Amino acid sequence: MIALDPIGVVESPLTAAADAPKQGFEGAPEATLVLEARVLDALDGVGAGDELVVVTWLDRARRDVLRVHPRDDASNPLRGVFSTRSQDRPNPIGLHRITVVAIDGLRVRVRDLEALDGTPVLDIKSALR
Amino acid sequence: MIALDPIGVVESPLTAAADAPKQGFEGAPEATLVLEARVLDALDGVGAGDELVVVTWLDRARRDVLRVHPRDDASNPLRGVFSTRSQDRPNPIGLHRITVVAIDGLRVRVRDLEALDGTPVLDIKSALR
Repeated sequence: MIALDPIGVVESPLTAAADAPKQGFEGAPEATLVLEARVLDALDGVGAGDELVVVTWLDRARRDVLRVHPRDDASNPLRGVFSTRSQDRPNPIGLHRITVVAIDGLRVRVRDLEALDGTPVLDIKSALR
Repeated sequence: MIALDPIGVVESPLTAAADAPKQGFEGAPEATLVLEARVLDALDGVGAGDELVVVTWLDRARRDVLRVHPRDDASNPLRGVFSTRSQDRPNPIGLHRITVVAIDGLRVRVRDLEALDGTPVLDIKSALR
């Protein structure tokens, strides 16, 4: 078993899965990553305009689902979650390619993040390609 | 605290970090994801040629590092790990964009995976963009 402590949390106007876009580039509102003081130095060099990958823990996802109808559309045939971006999966880790709007200390304002308010943040990386 | 059980493990000729490329597209050998029987149904629909994102737990990374010289090159100024792809970071989660070569039951042969032999696999997703 692997144990993780989140490095922060998402603040977002999105509070219900039904209101959230399936992907951030499909029209998510601006959101804020509120990071823990212990990781401040890890933000060094992050600035407005940067494209990053935010890794989250999708705490409202189902972990007992192995097959889904992609995009929750029953007309799409069932397929294994590893061939989809479904939030429901054994380890519901979310990957979100976002753009930084502004930084204020431990608060990182971003666009294109479709995670719900209160979602734990696990990691932040440069978006390579 | 969040608790995760790996869904499988990486089998690779890469056994030492010094031998591994920094990124999979920089020349990693073929490797195999060996998945657990309990997640077999989640592979339904995954096939040769698919581009996927493999999420790993970089179990040999340092978790107490907040700033690094990018690409381990001391001539690159120190910067926060969240603006890099360093493996060293508070929660060392690895993201690897790979291509499936072949599938045999729970064994998924892939190319462009630079993770070391024995690295735990946390999740597998369709590569969106």
